[in-house]
Amino acid sequence: MRIALGIEYDGGPFSGWQTQPGGEGVQDHLEAALSCLADAPIATITAGRTDAGVHALGQVVHFDTDVRRAEHSWVRGTNSHLNAHIRVLWAKQVSQEFHARYGARLRTYDYLLLNDAVDAGVWKGHVGWFHLPLDVKAMQTAVRDLVGEHDFTTFRAAQCQAASPVRTITAAEVSQQGLIVRFSFSANAFLHHMVRNLVGSLVYIGCGKQPAGWMAELIGARNRGLAAPTFAPDGLYLAAVEYDAQWGLPVFPARTLPIL
Amino acid sequence: MRIALGIEYDGGPFSGWQTQPGGEGVQDHLEAALSCLADAPIATITAGRTDAGVHALGQVVHFDTDVRRAEHSWVRGTNSHLNAHIRVLWAKQVSQEFHARYGARLRTYDYLLLNDAVDAGVWKGHVGWFHLPLDVKAMQTAVRDLVGEHDFTTFRAAQCQAASPVRTITAAEVSQQGLIVRFSFSANAFLHHMVRNLVGSLVYIGCGKQPAGWMAELIGARNRGLAAPTFAPDGLYLAAVEYDAQWGLPVFPARTLPIL
Repeated sequence: MRIALGIEYDGGPFSGWQTQPGGEGVQDHLEAALSCLADAPIATITAGRTDAGVHALGQVVHFDTDVRRAEHSWVRGTNSHLNAHIRVLWAKQVSQEFHARYGARLRTYDYLLLNDAVDAGVWKGHVGWFHLPLDVKAMQTAVRDLVGEHDFTTFRAAQCQAASPVRTITAAEVSQQGLIVRFSFSANAFLHHMVRNLVGSLVYIGCGKQPAGWMAELIGARNRGLAAPTFAPDGLYLAAVEYDAQWGLPVFPARTLPIL
Repeated sequence: MRIALGIEYDGGPFSGWQTQPGGEGVQDHLEAALSCLADAPIATITAGRTDAGVHALGQVVHFDTDVRRAEHSWVRGTNSHLNAHIRVLWAKQVSQEFHARYGARLRTYDYLLLNDAVDAGVWKGHVGWFHLPLDVKAMQTAVRDLVGEHDFTTFRAAQCQAASPVRTITAAEVSQQGLIVRFSFSANAFLHHMVRNLVGSLVYIGCGKQPAGWMAELIGARNRGLAAPTFAPDGLYLAAVEYDAQWGLPVFPARTLPIL
């Protein structure tokens, strides 16, 4: 049978999602805990392979197994064997046609950026940082040009393995709360480093190094050499992955932090 | 001359504020960085000695030195020598009569509690956790009985060194945002473990183990044996320390996280 899991993790202690020879991928920890519970090897397929240091609040994976366990056992039992910075939030038996990666129709990434003269201490590793004042309105104007189907070659990492650089962004927002600037992007899928590259170039606009129209220019140029450097992974969160309602996945409230 | 500093820190990596033989107190790290910058030994006095695992967003300290540095050098220079989980936010030369501990007239502590079946992963170490549903209204009723001048013997740790168990709470609030319950207490000063003991007993009320009137009973009983166990330090933040306006300390916005 096929089981889908919702999971969250702090990306800081791990080498990224993907399995590593040293076993320090989130996938290694999760598969070891699942295999321990099932007493049989279990391999997982993920909706999004996050990089080292990138967090997930709403990651989704699936796996196949012949071992029968109650859904709540896949949650509690796995968590009891798992590194405390990774938590299984829910488990759901799904049809064999469900696929965590190919079935995902929308992914949302959020980026939290501390905009202050002094870098983060309490939230070190959980927010990015930029020290000069940012013009949020200019960045809000700029992100409008990202929405729609575009060739995002300019914002694609050299090592990106995707067959096509074309992606459809359905929502792109910039907002500010206190000293934190939040970027939020929803798309059918993202290229490697795409969100961190978008944030880097938006920060160039926010600090006045480039005009708001620069994002549209960058998209049109299809040239990786023109964009700003890739921003740090610290503030990046895979916030949610959406699937068709037919799969019957649970609707789970995001476990986010309120303002103190 | 006397210098006041505003600092923040993630309590997780340290053994609490106070200096330790192994040098793993926040105070040890801060004094080493200050002494390195000044090229002379510097000893600090703090507004509140937080326990291991407790965080600070608005800690205040002072120290005396003959070494002359610009205020921004006390910030940037110290940060360049400091563990990344501790940050100096501001520095201000103050009169010799200013005292970070005795001059503090109000301290505010916040406690963030994840109220969900599954423990925190992304926010591990930054929130406390309780797995059964909590009745926020019952806890809101209960905290009203805390406001005012009371003998808080019931909520005092056995090892508390304060001369008197009497403290004045000027504000006590419970609120909920998503799956996070936030407790906030302002008082002239707090006894050792007082906030964590208050939260522990409020959770007993929230989960129905005790009625809302139990807090008033506990205060009246002046008996440490009656209260609920001390709650985990993970969700506790020294949010702010207030001084008389005469000292001219900067008003600094709290560097808090918004909802994702």
